[in-house]
Amino acid sequence: MIRVIIAGPRGKMGSEAIQMVNNTDNLELVACLDRKHDGKTLRDIESLPNMDVPIYENIEECFQQINADIFVDLTVPETGYIHTKAALKYHVRPVVGTSGFSTEQIEELTDIANTEKIGGLIAPNFAVGAVLMMQFAKQASKYFPDVEIIEKHHDQKLDAPSGTAIKTAELISEVRGSKKQGHTAERETVTGARGADFDGMKIHSIRLPGIVAHQEVIFGGSGQTLTIKHDSFNRKSFMAGIKLAIEEVMKIDELVYGLDNILE
Amino acid sequence: MIRVIIAGPRGKMGSEAIQMVNNTDNLELVACLDRKHDGKTLRDIESLPNMDVPIYENIEECFQQINADIFVDLTVPETGYIHTKAALKYHVRPVVGTSGFSTEQIEELTDIANTEKIGGLIAPNFAVGAVLMMQFAKQASKYFPDVEIIEKHHDQKLDAPSGTAIKTAELISEVRGSKKQGHTAERETVTGARGADFDGMKIHSIRLPGIVAHQEVIFGGSGQTLTIKHDSFNRKSFMAGIKLAIEEVMKIDELVYGLDNILE
Amino acid sequence: MIRVIIAGPRGKMGSEAIQMVNNTDNLELVACLDRKHDGKTLRDIESLPNMDVPIYENIEECFQQINADIFVDLTVPETGYIHTKAALKYHVRPVVGTSGFSTEQIEELTDIANTEKIGGLIAPNFAVGAVLMMQFAKQASKYFPDVEIIEKHHDQKLDAPSGTAIKTAELISEVRGSKKQGHTAERETVTGARGADFDGMKIHSIRLPGIVAHQEVIFGGSGQTLTIKHDSFNRKSFMAGIKLAIEEVMKIDELVYGLDNILE
Amino acid sequence: MIRVIIAGPRGKMGSEAIQMVNNTDNLELVACLDRKHDGKTLRDIESLPNMDVPIYENIEECFQQINADIFVDLTVPETGYIHTKAALKYHVRPVVGTSGFSTEQIEELTDIANTEKIGGLIAPNFAVGAVLMMQFAKQASKYFPDVEIIEKHHDQKLDAPSGTAIKTAELISEVRGSKKQGHTAERETVTGARGADFDGMKIHSIRLPGIVAHQEVIFGGSGQTLTIKHDSFNRKSFMAGIKLAIEEVMKIDELVYGLDNILE
Repeated sequence: MIRVIIAGPRGKMGSEAIQMVNNTDNLELVACLDRKHDGKTLRDIESLPNMDVPIYENIEECFQQINADIFVDLTVPETGYIHTKAALKYHVRPVVGTSGFSTEQIEELTDIANTEKIGGLIAPNFAVGAVLMMQFAKQASKYFPDVEIIEKHHDQKLDAPSGTAIKTAELISEVRGSKKQGHTAERETVTGARGADFDGMKIHSIRLPGIVAHQEVIFGGSGQTLTIKHDSFNRKSFMAGIKLAIEEVMKIDELVYGLDNILE
Repeated sequence: MIRVIIAGPRGKMGSEAIQMVNNTDNLELVACLDRKHDGKTLRDIESLPNMDVPIYENIEECFQQINADIFVDLTVPETGYIHTKAALKYHVRPVVGTSGFSTEQIEELTDIANTEKIGGLIAPNFAVGAVLMMQFAKQASKYFPDVEIIEKHHDQKLDAPSGTAIKTAELISEVRGSKKQGHTAERETVTGARGADFDGMKIHSIRLPGIVAHQEVIFGGSGQTLTIKHDSFNRKSFMAGIKLAIEEVMKIDELVYGLDNILE
Repeated sequence: MIRVIIAGPRGKMGSEAIQMVNNTDNLELVACLDRKHDGKTLRDIESLPNMDVPIYENIEECFQQINADIFVDLTVPETGYIHTKAALKYHVRPVVGTSGFSTEQIEELTDIANTEKIGGLIAPNFAVGAVLMMQFAKQASKYFPDVEIIEKHHDQKLDAPSGTAIKTAELISEVRGSKKQGHTAERETVTGARGADFDGMKIHSIRLPGIVAHQEVIFGGSGQTLTIKHDSFNRKSFMAGIKLAIEEVMKIDELVYGLDNILE
Repeated sequence: MIRVIIAGPRGKMGSEAIQMVNNTDNLELVACLDRKHDGKTLRDIESLPNMDVPIYENIEECFQQINADIFVDLTVPETGYIHTKAALKYHVRPVVGTSGFSTEQIEELTDIANTEKIGGLIAPNFAVGAVLMMQFAKQASKYFPDVEIIEKHHDQKLDAPSGTAIKTAELISEVRGSKKQGHTAERETVTGARGADFDGMKIHSIRLPGIVAHQEVIFGGSGQTLTIKHDSFNRKSFMAGIKLAIEEVMKIDELVYGLDNILE
């Protein structure tokens, strides 16, 4: 049985994570870390399950009193950084969902994990399908250097392209470098038709009501196309990744960045 | 049996049209109009079928000597205009594939057809599937005003967006008017991500090797999307439209513009 | 302002409908019909909005005391039938979501509506996108008699094919009749590969976790395919249809079956 | 410069391969092996390019007179087997496109290559995109055991499912084993709706006019789907694979089966 502490239990991700742990046979929720409700149990909080699991506000106190294997952090980067340091010090393996740590912070945490010989994971994205899509796209670009990315999100999203689209383009760029695509005399009769340019590959952002979160990466070669597509319908898609992370982090003794590094 | 004359028999469309007429039970090829090879027959031309069908360079002579029901023009706009006028005059119903006639030319030909009480069709696009896609898109936009168009072509195409994408957007615009889509504070972190703007709807042009000619029109509404997609793999897709046009033009006594006007 | 009564306010559809009415400028919720909570108001029920709208258990009493234009029924067929009769009698235009009425019941209700000269709608499906998909599919089959249907649902769905797929096939069959598709010598090396046969067209049912409700109808013709696809992500997709139904039913003076009959 | 001999120059694949070699800078066509036209050159055969490249009927004679690096066989399995043995003996690296060799034949050829320390490749499929699709599908099934395959081909194809679909299912099965998918009480109201069963995963075969050759592998997990799709539009899609094979086979000193084994 893997004993798990979750930080951020009242957030959207946190409450899904509690459900996931409760529904998984070899995982046991042993405590929660919350910035309020110290000394209470989950049962005292209206939105949380009717369980005797204790809530702590102070992380050191939590680690001193509770024997745990895994610390799942689903809070904000500032708090998450402090939490992760404490977890490594108390030899509770951290699984942290954030894209907000600085390079220096990641290096420092990696060094601590190495010294303490303890495994852990920091991941900007827990959707296994999205991570596989990016891995496959990177591999495919060795053989198909011509590629375009179409990502679709609901029309309340502010930024275009999405973070995942940019990340995918960066990974492809590592393999194939910069490459001007399309006809050399190509022209837009309406500006923007050919999309955003990223090292010569094109990214197109669709925004419509009704849509959730989708991305397809299309590779074109003589007489054929290869498409890798991820459709995300809701937050539950992240839970399979957190569960996988918990299981894999138990087997390693270093801190790893990115879910892709624990996928085979 | 419908007796057919084809102008432009050595072109890509023309030679496909000859095949289509030969493979259709109720159609008979009775002559071809070509700017060379006057007095020869198809059998004398290497790339054409081994048939006794006569070739004419002069259209008046052709109509005087050959009794025909339908005149299919697959040449260029300048020649096509002269041919169509002659066909109407000789009461041979014209089926003309061109987007190159001016509004004045179309009006003049329509007037002649009305006076002569003879049916005919001028169509910029004979791909029945593409025409249905545009019709359906126009209908759907009454109920789903939020729409984006993705069109995909091979990477040797010069212009973006494609003519069909623009035409589709125009038809949708007739119904829903101009409408700003997406979040009001939406921003492109890489220019062009949100595509080309056409009256507030967005058009995205993909260009990759291996791709032929594809378009999808995506409508988004609360909790749902509706997508209408046309995939064109080769020139044969136009032949079903020419065949349909020939059959429908036999039933009408006016000149019609656009294949959509003979679809029910 | 259109005054609306909703029957079944605590159901999933009913509670969405209350929200929709509240968010729509020209609609006003004036009462609810519920099989319990008589004499209370919405505010007394925990899951419902904090509003003074009265709740009735008895439909006659409701119509006697409350002046309304539209009666939306989102209950079960047995109750819905009684409700609809009462609504017609009290000249409150019914909008009923059910596929459970018998042909006799529909005929009887239609007769009453004719006699009373009052508009109404009974609809088995309020997803405007799905209804348009079926209409377009029917139209397209005139020109493309070769067609296959792929429908995708979550893996907890019991029946295959889905009701919408069967309905779509029936509509297509009305136009093109029965037609054996595929090669005459076609054979399945693994049984079931070619899907379910419906008058010669094939239906394929995909069942996977993560999927919500999707259907695509693919038409194939020489050199081209035309695809019409509907993706439903959640129950909100029905609300646009109910809203449209309310507005259109105000303009007619007969009882109509099927949302398609009020779409232009 | 890599010197190439092609067997089967008048076949569809062979004539495409000649074009590909001629269009590739570091490849040179030095001879062809044909079952007729011995002693002639390509220029003497109407359908072949106007080149001085000699044609041989006898393979031993060909290898004795012509110094070559690579032998590309695009004939039939019986001939291909004899050719491959000769190629290995004369130390000309074979690249053979066939799925028709027996296990014994492959083992024997592998042994010869090992003894002679010479590289070679036998591949049932040269479409790089299709091979990547299968590799990615195998990898993805580690994390997403629920999967269905949809393959689409023109309606003149006799067998369903396609060979590629079966091959993909076999590869997935190696990873996830047999697994019953869908609801345990699932039932087909029309037989065949749920497709062909392969170790619990489902395969669906679409056959329509206009379609070329397409396959998508759809993985479903909680809240998400991952799709890997290959679209093949024409035979040119195989040429990139043959070119890649020629280049990679120059670097190895054993006989490899399957293009996947030379992809990184």
